[in-house]
Amino acid sequence: MNDAAAPGRLRWAIAEGYIPGRSHGPAPDLESHEACCVLNAGDEPAQVRITLYFEDREPVGPYRFTIPARRTRHLRYNDFADPEPVPRDTPYASVIESDRPVVVQHTRLDSRQAENALMTTIAYPG
Amino acid sequence: MNDAAAPGRLRWAIAEGYIPGRSHGPAPDLESHEACCVLNAGDEPAQVRITLYFEDREPVGPYRFTIPARRTRHLRYNDFADPEPVPRDTPYASVIESDRPVVVQHTRLDSRQAENALMTTIAYPG
Amino acid sequence: MNDAAAPGRLRWAIAEGYIPGRSHGPAPDLESHEACCVLNAGDEPAQVRITLYFEDREPVGPYRFTIPARRTRHLRYNDFADPEPVPRDTPYASVIESDRPVVVQHTRLDSRQAENALMTTIAYPG
Amino acid sequence: MNDAAAPGRLRWAIAEGYIPGRSHGPAPDLESHEACCVLNAGDEPAQVRITLYFEDREPVGPYRFTIPARRTRHLRYNDFADPEPVPRDTPYASVIESDRPVVVQHTRLDSRQAENALMTTIAYPG
Repeated sequence: MNDAAAPGRLRWAIAEGYIPGRSHGPAPDLESHEACCVLNAGDEPAQVRITLYFEDREPVGPYRFTIPARRTRHLRYNDFADPEPVPRDTPYASVIESDRPVVVQHTRLDSRQAENALMTTIAYPG
Repeated sequence: MNDAAAPGRLRWAIAEGYIPGRSHGPAPDLESHEACCVLNAGDEPAQVRITLYFEDREPVGPYRFTIPARRTRHLRYNDFADPEPVPRDTPYASVIESDRPVVVQHTRLDSRQAENALMTTIAYPG
Repeated sequence: MNDAAAPGRLRWAIAEGYIPGRSHGPAPDLESHEACCVLNAGDEPAQVRITLYFEDREPVGPYRFTIPARRTRHLRYNDFADPEPVPRDTPYASVIESDRPVVVQHTRLDSRQAENALMTTIAYPG
Repeated sequence: MNDAAAPGRLRWAIAEGYIPGRSHGPAPDLESHEACCVLNAGDEPAQVRITLYFEDREPVGPYRFTIPARRTRHLRYNDFADPEPVPRDTPYASVIESDRPVVVQHTRLDSRQAENALMTTIAYPG
């Protein structure tokens, strides 16, 4: 699909963000984590920039990712490294910007206790 | 309801997708699964095509389904077979296209541990 | 707020629906249930009609409810009675119609196992 | 980002609301709670007013909050105090109004049983 036909938007926002500092399951699949799932259904690679917002300091970013044509990537905030790791046990929010249309969904797996908990939502497009 | 009156859209996207490879409950209702719930409230059958996107290979599909008039179907990705089964423990994303308006919602039941976890979201329309 | 000012829409859809037939907690608050939360922030009562769609039979409804002015109601599908109860362990979907703007959110509490699971989403407006 | 560029809306609604009266984990992070996450990505502080709606009495509020420029705040309904605390084990709904564009997401952590459950959704913009 070309850009005009591919589903999605150029900007998305996720107001909730929190990586639990503890886990109670084998890594990596049952490690507590938060993910930003990005779908690029178009025929060109998408350059994605994610900026993180905090409660008590200036925004951090952009974190840069390439989503190849006709691919999805499930980006784990746990693994963000450049310009700096995402602090644990700290509320944050995200703005995701792309040079081509993408679809963004937010998911958290919380395994702080013996059993895991899940939540997800399509991000806010706009 | 005729097409103009029936709620929904002709295309939807779900950026998150992952079928856990393990379960810890009696099948089928407590088996780990991921579902694409489709509602066709209109007066004509809807022909639905689902394409799956992956992190490291070309898209697979379309998977074809018919949603009869005035019916819902809760399609389990676990059961997708043609053109090929959906791999377990593998991130994917979906684009759902229909020839008539439908409403799409995404749900996962994860029963890898002793207690099940649930998540859901209305898909992205557009 | 008058109708023009009150937030919401006149029609909403929820593609996912399933009331687990078993529970593992004290009723009513930890009983497995599915709810349709409706907010009427306007200055007039809203007459709401809910129609249920199934996989293998004609739709059932409308179920009729009044949401008073400036009130919310968390309607439990478990308690729907007229024209008939909602079957357990059966996939369904809902269309919610109102004569005044309302906001609709869908929630499920699943307590089939020892620990409860939760999911929620704003319904599809349109 | 200036107001025209910042993502979000001036009004949001959340139809679901319920603070469980019991918890089964260490406070504050595993205490049962419900949060309204607000992101202000703009360059000016946002004045936010939240009004709560109930099933059987008049709305309560506004609760007033400031979200500084380029900040997020994860507001816990559990901590709302002025004009009055939010009752436990009581269904409610929220309307969030802001003088500048913000993005709102709703999350609940339920730890009434031994294991926690999570749910989230982007609020309804409009």
